[in-house]
Amino acid sequence: MATLGDIGVSALINILSAFAFLLAFALLRIQPINDRVYFPKWYIIGKRTSPRNWGGVVGKFVNLNIKTYLTFLNWMPQALKMSESEIINHAGLDSAVFLRIYTLGLKIFGPIAIAALLVLIPVNVSGGTLFFLRRDLVVSDIDKLSISNIRPKSYKFFIHISMEYLFTFWVCYMLYKEYDRVASMRLNFLASQGKRAEQFTVLVRNVPHVSGRSISDSVETFFQRNHPDRYLCHQAVYNANKFARLVRKRNRLQNWLDYNQLKFERHSEKRPTRRIGFLGLWGERVDSIDFYKEQIKNLDTKLTMERQKILKDPKSVMSAAFVSFNSRWGAAVCAQTQQSKNPTLWLTNWAPEPRDIYWKNLAIPFLSLSMRKLVISLSVFALVFFYMIPIAFVQSLANLEGLEKVAPFLRPLIEWSFVKSFLQGFLPGLALKLFLYILPTLLMIMSKIEGHVAVSVLERRAAAKYYYFMLVNVFLGSIVTGTAFQQLHAFLHQSPTQIPRNIGVSIPMKATFFITYIMIDGWAGIAGEILRLKPLVIFHLKNMFIVKTERDLDKAMDPGGVDFPETLPSLQLYFLLGIVYMVVTPILLPFILVFFALAYFVYRHQVINVYNQQYESAAAFWPHVHGRIIASLLISQLLLLGLLSTKRAANSTPLLVALPILTLTFHKYCKNRFEPAFRKYPLEEAMSKDTQDRASESDIDLKAYLADAYLHPIFHSFEEVELVEVRVDKNQAPHVASASPSELSSPSPQYATYHNEEEAAHSVQHYEVEPPPHETAYQYQYEFESTGNNLFRYDLESHQHGYHY
Amino acid sequence: MATLGDIGVSALINILSAFAFLLAFALLRIQPINDRVYFPKWYIIGKRTSPRNWGGVVGKFVNLNIKTYLTFLNWMPQALKMSESEIINHAGLDSAVFLRIYTLGLKIFGPIAIAALLVLIPVNVSGGTLFFLRRDLVVSDIDKLSISNIRPKSYKFFIHISMEYLFTFWVCYMLYKEYDRVASMRLNFLASQGKRAEQFTVLVRNVPHVSGRSISDSVETFFQRNHPDRYLCHQAVYNANKFARLVRKRNRLQNWLDYNQLKFERHSEKRPTRRIGFLGLWGERVDSIDFYKEQIKNLDTKLTMERQKILKDPKSVMSAAFVSFNSRWGAAVCAQTQQSKNPTLWLTNWAPEPRDIYWKNLAIPFLSLSMRKLVISLSVFALVFFYMIPIAFVQSLANLEGLEKVAPFLRPLIEWSFVKSFLQGFLPGLALKLFLYILPTLLMIMSKIEGHVAVSVLERRAAAKYYYFMLVNVFLGSIVTGTAFQQLHAFLHQSPTQIPRNIGVSIPMKATFFITYIMIDGWAGIAGEILRLKPLVIFHLKNMFIVKTERDLDKAMDPGGVDFPETLPSLQLYFLLGIVYMVVTPILLPFILVFFALAYFVYRHQVINVYNQQYESAAAFWPHVHGRIIASLLISQLLLLGLLSTKRAANSTPLLVALPILTLTFHKYCKNRFEPAFRKYPLEEAMSKDTQDRASESDIDLKAYLADAYLHPIFHSFEEVELVEVRVDKNQAPHVASASPSELSSPSPQYATYHNEEEAAHSVQHYEVEPPPHETAYQYQYEFESTGNNLFRYDLESHQHGYHY
Repeated sequence: MATLGDIGVSALINILSAFAFLLAFALLRIQPINDRVYFPKWYIIGKRTSPRNWGGVVGKFVNLNIKTYLTFLNWMPQALKMSESEIINHAGLDSAVFLRIYTLGLKIFGPIAIAALLVLIPVNVSGGTLFFLRRDLVVSDIDKLSISNIRPKSYKFFIHISMEYLFTFWVCYMLYKEYDRVASMRLNFLASQGKRAEQFTVLVRNVPHVSGRSISDSVETFFQRNHPDRYLCHQAVYNANKFARLVRKRNRLQNWLDYNQLKFERHSEKRPTRRIGFLGLWGERVDSIDFYKEQIKNLDTKLTMERQKILKDPKSVMSAAFVSFNSRWGAAVCAQTQQSKNPTLWLTNWAPEPRDIYWKNLAIPFLSLSMRKLVISLSVFALVFFYMIPIAFVQSLANLEGLEKVAPFLRPLIEWSFVKSFLQGFLPGLALKLFLYILPTLLMIMSKIEGHVAVSVLERRAAAKYYYFMLVNVFLGSIVTGTAFQQLHAFLHQSPTQIPRNIGVSIPMKATFFITYIMIDGWAGIAGEILRLKPLVIFHLKNMFIVKTERDLDKAMDPGGVDFPETLPSLQLYFLLGIVYMVVTPILLPFILVFFALAYFVYRHQVINVYNQQYESAAAFWPHVHGRIIASLLISQLLLLGLLSTKRAANSTPLLVALPILTLTFHKYCKNRFEPAFRKYPLEEAMSKDTQDRASESDIDLKAYLADAYLHPIFHSFEEVELVEVRVDKNQAPHVASASPSELSSPSPQYATYHNEEEAAHSVQHYEVEPPPHETAYQYQYEFESTGNNLFRYDLESHQHGYHY
Repeated sequence: MATLGDIGVSALINILSAFAFLLAFALLRIQPINDRVYFPKWYIIGKRTSPRNWGGVVGKFVNLNIKTYLTFLNWMPQALKMSESEIINHAGLDSAVFLRIYTLGLKIFGPIAIAALLVLIPVNVSGGTLFFLRRDLVVSDIDKLSISNIRPKSYKFFIHISMEYLFTFWVCYMLYKEYDRVASMRLNFLASQGKRAEQFTVLVRNVPHVSGRSISDSVETFFQRNHPDRYLCHQAVYNANKFARLVRKRNRLQNWLDYNQLKFERHSEKRPTRRIGFLGLWGERVDSIDFYKEQIKNLDTKLTMERQKILKDPKSVMSAAFVSFNSRWGAAVCAQTQQSKNPTLWLTNWAPEPRDIYWKNLAIPFLSLSMRKLVISLSVFALVFFYMIPIAFVQSLANLEGLEKVAPFLRPLIEWSFVKSFLQGFLPGLALKLFLYILPTLLMIMSKIEGHVAVSVLERRAAAKYYYFMLVNVFLGSIVTGTAFQQLHAFLHQSPTQIPRNIGVSIPMKATFFITYIMIDGWAGIAGEILRLKPLVIFHLKNMFIVKTERDLDKAMDPGGVDFPETLPSLQLYFLLGIVYMVVTPILLPFILVFFALAYFVYRHQVINVYNQQYESAAAFWPHVHGRIIASLLISQLLLLGLLSTKRAANSTPLLVALPILTLTFHKYCKNRFEPAFRKYPLEEAMSKDTQDRASESDIDLKAYLADAYLHPIFHSFEEVELVEVRVDKNQAPHVASASPSELSSPSPQYATYHNEEEAAHSVQHYEVEPPPHETAYQYQYEFESTGNNLFRYDLESHQHGYHY
């Protein structure tokens, strides 16, 4: 058992390491060479194109300006400067609301910590059971501040129970206010958005196959009949997974071609060559530029054929479609109603944003979805409770005897005692570490198999799975000894009232463990987050070995969005810890407050300077956050009930029984009051936006705007690249590309800009150095491409029908 | 423990009593005096107006035709003669689908019984544990045919497990087929109906109060803005509960007036008189006819004032409204979508049929509904598990000592030993019997407090509560000893795996009890149902003492609908018994089959000849029936799992674990596949019906049709009575009344006919005998009434706005 002194030492270590991280960050971030790691967001939105430079060759890599070293901690006030509405504009509502979770933590636990420290600590200390009666036992100092110190049957438990009531009401009040605020932020955000494709579009799944009729025909007939005057057009969904693979391959080849052309330009005396064998390691040596051009040409033929096949073959048209309406009202009605007599056909739902769609899963036949869901929920259950079994198996294989058998030549080395003890200590842990490292990826793959069609939903589902894992294996697993599987077994064979008692009684004993956990994972971990050590190393490694073109540089720099599947569950674990311990061992609360404050600073900085959300779900994750804090309250009440029942506080314990019922009632009320704002789109809102639109800009051609919005992005980007290339080739200014018709059809201006700028930048760099002799060959290829492309557009248009607006 | 012989005797007794009931029924039903008890349905639909008569004064009461006595069992083939579609036309879809539950029982348990008897009984008998090893113990013969007879660890359990799988698949297959059939019957039924008010109307609740604006104004503005071109008109909901009380009082007085006038007509020498004191028992003696006329006049003034008050006072307008649309499509859209940004305002839902509405609950403010739901669910829980506590309390009060204290004068009587023993045996049971007798009424009152606005929903909710009560107190209560409260206590302190084991192990032992239960409650009880002993006695008692006018006769005859709140739960209990025992003690199945067959005959007869449904929910109860049979499957699987685990059949038991998962998956699939047909109205269907309508009858004035459909029936009937009275008074033929404008506005032709005919019949009988001298006074009253009525109509119209169709 840790004494207060031990906790102090641990705190010191962790505070020092956190400071070391912060210091390292402060120094590293002002080096120009790291600029793309610590400020990628500004590159992406186009406000910065190259690192700040302090002159000279060295200045390109190292910051030589002494002044900036003196103000190296100025990122903290900078991070707070941006107002919330600016953050919404800069990084989207998801990020802004994500930051609100941290302030919610501060708002909830701040007053609770003060009240608990002022009231409960004196009450607990004055109890003195442990101090007087069990001096000979090993009792932690922390325990003297906790509820364990109260004598059984004491009337002081009334104070704890009334505090639990008070704190629950406070948490619920803050939750209510926050839910209200987030819901209205969401509605305002949606209302302030301009015309967006997803507002007019509904994803229809399970379109029935009628023999002798194409899916497109069926969709059009059905919606023209059942939504006359409102149906506008639709976009069929193609199974383009194979095509996407080919496009990725072509991009890779194009990248190699660019690389070789750059190389040739720099050293024009020698044309680059490569071998044609595996990975260019052996075989005949050929001219690289010609080789890649040839390869790309072959691939383009394949692509054209594949494209034709997709568009001609009715089997590649999935039984799903994006149906667009001429008003938001029409789309809202279609998304919320049942269309067909057979409720498993013509399933309608809001279409996610085009950039949010996970295209691969649109190709999953709807029938297999429920089977997939069942299989995945069983697997998650197994993963949560039985994950130790395969790891123990791997561990038993990976012991020394196993290693000697597999690799007898290592025997002399292994027999060396130093190596032996090192391996014995290290190998069993390695399997577990590896497993925990790949766990988020594994959970994401499981969510993908479940078949959700939006990236945002995938991330939310992965986060839910991760939360269950943490709840069982980190929280319960730390409190109750034994593996999760053993716990499950014990739970099944205990009476239901015994379970909260058994867990409740160990809760106060584990306070020191969780305090250490908060300091390591929360304090030092968050400081590590801002340092971005892994991305920093990977970026520089990539820069050294992989980056060949500007496109590669952009890829290496790409920070992705905030890692919701990992961040949200661990955040919710802190809420759980705080809520469970707020009455039991209130000394834990200040540690949690420090975590929330530090994490708020760090993530505010990261959201402003680093992360770039791939989609905008308008805070769709909030109901989950709310629901899990409510679940934490329930867990805390049950455990307190169990704990008190072991203290034989029979006269006070029954008072607690009403609390879970009240909490559940509150949750149900919130669900009714706010959740529809996250699931449905009220007709009132749709109608008022429609009326606004009609008043302001009546002559925009909505159909043209929506026509290509939900085309598979592979077709899209391929098209755009070609358009840009053709223009550049004709010596037009590259910025014309961003005004190409494809932008009109792009649903999200920010996304379109990003995409085009990236492409444009790449094209400029590439084609401005292109040597003239190859122009004819290229010209031919472009012509071929554009023909193919026109053919392709023509085919597509024949698949898009509907009324004119 | 009962032997096979005991069961035989019990069967004989029950078969004999069932036959006695059937015989009594066969004899009583052909007596003209009972005609209105056994064939009320034919009177109600107007196909019979007076009992068949076999001539003479005696023939009016007793059947003198010998021939009919010889064919007295011909009701059975007669009951089968009507085809299902004829039953739907005759008695509605609810009744037709209700009968299908019995055929479903036969279809499920018929093949299962054959398979179980052929396969399992031989297997069980050959086991012989009980026969050889425990001859000295008291072992029932029935047990030798059950799974108890199998030796522990026997491989024969594989046969039982595979039969459980087989039977589960069979039950699921039949359930699937039946759900499919019922869903399509429902859709066909809805599609075949003509224009009905509820297809065009949506019930809007929680209309927000805007200061300075009436609810009607708000409703109109809101729906004109958000459903333009589709909104037609609306009907405000008034809190007319006080008015309804006054109308009921007026009807009572009118009845007394009619009675006295009839009396005066028969004995015109003496005008009837009465005393004005309490219940006419003392006080001054006055002329009855004048007295009631005066009273009615006073009441009419009050009614007119109350009416004015309701229409003028904004407080009597509830924040709810019936909003009608000009197409089914518009109503379907409005009912299924969220209207307002605040999801707790403007809640829309399908309006129930006008005659299905429980008007009183429309006056409940929506806010209190969730609180009511919480309170009622807690009370139901308490009722189910703790109902023995108050009864034990009452029992302890109602013992002999208590009685002697309260009524000392009874002491000599009580001390007499015969009376004493009788009372001691009788009194404690009386409280329980009384409780069980009032239980359905109690549950119905609880459902009414919950605040559902449709009678059909009220009955379904009451049925659900009754089912929980039966499941815990009849099924579990018979298996596990002790009261439900003790069981709950035991369950909370047992491990979850121990519960099915404890129950499972007692299952086979209770087979004889349940066989007896089936014979008493199922066989004799159902035969009692067809005899209608209670309604018969009550009808004749009423006829002797209360019936004064034709209106009273109609009331005394009214059979009501099938008593779903009691019938459905007991029916589901038989499914539960059959499914639980199908593998454990298959000898129980034939008894259940006899029940289903007999009950099918009886209820078919009753539905055709007796019951008159008050509403038509189009089989909305089916998902509950389906769900509870699934629940029975799950209970059966769990209990078998528990039972086998006590038999140490460790190698076979794990095979059963997959079955509950498969069953739940099946249930979820059915829910997705069929349940929306019972909850939502597909747009495809709405649109096709709209198109049909437009093609066939384009010039009907929909607005006039819908205008009064959802007016509080109290206003309605009051109006109609007056219209009829005015006509009759002007010596017009009474059948004109049924062509009055009020019928056009009546939503249900069947209901309207019934209502008008009843009223018309009454008016004819009454006014044809009216003496001329009073004509002037009446004329004045009618004029007053019609003025009031016109005023009233005018006021109402000023509350109905909307576009013309």
